[in-house]
Amino acid sequence: MNDIISSRQFARDDLERIFEVATGMEPISRGEEESQLLRNKYLATLFFEASTRTRFSFEIAMLRLGGQVINTTNVAFSSITKGESVHDTVKVVGNFVDIIAIRHPQVGSALIASKATNKPVINAGDGHGEHPTQALLDLFTILKEKNGINGLKIALVGDLRFGRTIHSLAQLLTHYDVEIFFVSPEILRAPESLLAYLKEKGVSYHETEDLEEVIGQIDVLYDTRIQEERFADPKEYEKVKNCYTIDKEMVGKGKEDISIMHPLPRLEEICEEVDELPNAAYFRQSFYGVPIRMALLAILLGKA
Amino acid sequence: MNDIISSRQFARDDLERIFEVATGMEPISRGEEESQLLRNKYLATLFFEASTRTRFSFEIAMLRLGGQVINTTNVAFSSITKGESVHDTVKVVGNFVDIIAIRHPQVGSALIASKATNKPVINAGDGHGEHPTQALLDLFTILKEKNGINGLKIALVGDLRFGRTIHSLAQLLTHYDVEIFFVSPEILRAPESLLAYLKEKGVSYHETEDLEEVIGQIDVLYDTRIQEERFADPKEYEKVKNCYTIDKEMVGKGKEDISIMHPLPRLEEICEEVDELPNAAYFRQSFYGVPIRMALLAILLGKA
Amino acid sequence: MNDIISSRQFARDDLERIFEVATGMEPISRGEEESQLLRNKYLATLFFEASTRTRFSFEIAMLRLGGQVINTTNVAFSSITKGESVHDTVKVVGNFVDIIAIRHPQVGSALIASKATNKPVINAGDGHGEHPTQALLDLFTILKEKNGINGLKIALVGDLRFGRTIHSLAQLLTHYDVEIFFVSPEILRAPESLLAYLKEKGVSYHETEDLEEVIGQIDVLYDTRIQEERFADPKEYEKVKNCYTIDKEMVGKGKEDISIMHPLPRLEEICEEVDELPNAAYFRQSFYGVPIRMALLAILLGKA
Repeated sequence: MNDIISSRQFARDDLERIFEVATGMEPISRGEEESQLLRNKYLATLFFEASTRTRFSFEIAMLRLGGQVINTTNVAFSSITKGESVHDTVKVVGNFVDIIAIRHPQVGSALIASKATNKPVINAGDGHGEHPTQALLDLFTILKEKNGINGLKIALVGDLRFGRTIHSLAQLLTHYDVEIFFVSPEILRAPESLLAYLKEKGVSYHETEDLEEVIGQIDVLYDTRIQEERFADPKEYEKVKNCYTIDKEMVGKGKEDISIMHPLPRLEEICEEVDELPNAAYFRQSFYGVPIRMALLAILLGKA
Repeated sequence: MNDIISSRQFARDDLERIFEVATGMEPISRGEEESQLLRNKYLATLFFEASTRTRFSFEIAMLRLGGQVINTTNVAFSSITKGESVHDTVKVVGNFVDIIAIRHPQVGSALIASKATNKPVINAGDGHGEHPTQALLDLFTILKEKNGINGLKIALVGDLRFGRTIHSLAQLLTHYDVEIFFVSPEILRAPESLLAYLKEKGVSYHETEDLEEVIGQIDVLYDTRIQEERFADPKEYEKVKNCYTIDKEMVGKGKEDISIMHPLPRLEEICEEVDELPNAAYFRQSFYGVPIRMALLAILLGKA
Repeated sequence: MNDIISSRQFARDDLERIFEVATGMEPISRGEEESQLLRNKYLATLFFEASTRTRFSFEIAMLRLGGQVINTTNVAFSSITKGESVHDTVKVVGNFVDIIAIRHPQVGSALIASKATNKPVINAGDGHGEHPTQALLDLFTILKEKNGINGLKIALVGDLRFGRTIHSLAQLLTHYDVEIFFVSPEILRAPESLLAYLKEKGVSYHETEDLEEVIGQIDVLYDTRIQEERFADPKEYEKVKNCYTIDKEMVGKGKEDISIMHPLPRLEEICEEVDELPNAAYFRQSFYGVPIRMALLAILLGKA
């Protein structure tokens, strides 16, 4: 592993190694142990679009491991407004630091970045392309919540058409023996290419529009937001926007230990009343981003 | 003390403890002593509106105590533009770090933040609500400039109606035996609720429109800016805008050791010629924000 | 040296001392050696306009020397939008930190800043005024690429009228025995004042519009971008915009060891195919900004 660009790059062994290192990082990520593992190592967070949660997660991971960070916090990039290429920016910054986390609105930009420098590059989201560290922390959350992944029934709910989070997670799940339930309005069904990929990998999956149909049999419910801007006709949006609202009643229809996940930010799709249930895994999920990113930083810098 | 949300939360004992700790922090804040007191502690500065001075003050306080910082430097918050609640943002970030300083344009947001996480939260200004760390540094400045607070005559000058700085400082002053002079245009008088509070606490105060009437008897003149946007009628603003301009001549009418304070930024309300006088306390005042915030960080993190 | 404000402030001895210290910093700048030279020292990067490359260069220099940084990353300055003067901002921030790097769109702002505080101030670009650390890293690059400066033939190419980089570098070159070739369209010729200065200092120089005329005899080609916004008539711009495009063919017409420099960002004025040639010095040049800024930080903080 020289760079983290795509969820598709990982073999099952890679995932297990990352999760093993991440598990070792947990006490450090909670501040229970100090670490100087990445002392004298420097991370640049090159965020061409704002994403505070993801950026913070990378930065605190680096700092808690004894490393240091130089950062950009929004799109107001001088050189970019002057038209400099991602390649040139990354080549320059790669000479300054030891590792780069890049977020950029254009698909493929992380790959371009990785080719511009011999320093490790981590894709922190490239448009509707990939967001592999999110997929890793999602899978790690399932592992931690359920003490294992094989044998689980996992529902992916909401916008399955545009949600890159869902696509990347589904890809990673092909490395395990799971059953996937795709739950979405007709208009937001998972893309054919993803379904074909699952079929090829022998993953059993089902599609439905009705969450109630599957709620009783699943171990994990991964909810995502349905975004208004995806709909040409606002009336179409109104019809589906609240169709998968997760409230206490809905959770009550599930298994007692059902885990509710969400990549955040959540709006109305998960009611606040759910937060107090032990099933609400989404804030733990966002926290697992820290040990996962610690593991990736350590592995890529040869310090794991 | 678990959080710093409001000036009203402090008992006299709290103030004395904070000032004692802050006094001990002074050599560190000036770089004369090194400290690792907050080593392995991490602060997030969550600034939903820009305030460079306040943010810098928190960050340098944390860094000089050996801690580290992750920060946001302006409003371009991805999750916010996507509509995430302050509660959710703070709950997530609270899992990453050990303490949060939050600035947000909405009144009450700091209280919401403090309830979202079990990590300490410091209000770095919530709209026209509160800015308690400013009030503490203001009072600390008076203490340092005058070697005590009891017995002082203190004039609060300018926009007494909207200036949250003034309101918070006046509240803190009720813990001491002082005499307050409110000096403002009629239209910008201190709110009745504040005056009623002072009366209830037995603080003697006076109101006047005429600074010259009181300049000769006061120990501290706390000046604030009169903002044009407060006036519906620009002519009203023109009439009062320069009525309390502090120049050398005005300082000359005061006691020899009168201290001139101002929360900064200042525009024309204090002439630059005043800067060279020993009475000009406003730059020392802004500096005292560092030991005060060091004290708060250390106390809230259990390291004082 | 108390501040770095202008390229004109350096004597030949200053340059040699800076380059000597910078040479010593190279292993640290590449991460091959750890340093705690600037431990307990704090830099504020006050960037009133975005310039990621320059800011990163200062920040990584400070961090790799064991210092710490508080930063601003774009123009959204609260106090500025409220109209605070550079003087006041710097006076306040100067009380917080040990050294300031300031970038500001107005000519002369760095000088104002240096007078506002007794802490060292480094000009990181003040509008079309000066950018002395760029000039130093440019000269340092020539020194490193050519193992010396005396005797070199150096072409400055492109926008010689508005390019502050060119003006500052030409000024520094007067300390050495070099021959300068100014290559530009008629409309973008170097200003008379600069030419007069060179004449006064006894530097031999030539002016031409034709790069091919000089390409065969120069050791260094310093290219700069011709900016469309400099032209009242777009047709004028179209005529000259590609007149000095550096491609492999053009490099092939030069000496075998000709060094191609550019302050970056580059757009079409240097073709990407040139990047792979050993002559392409511009990415090494941007890297040399780190040891140069390390040297300046160390010297100004009395730690060199």
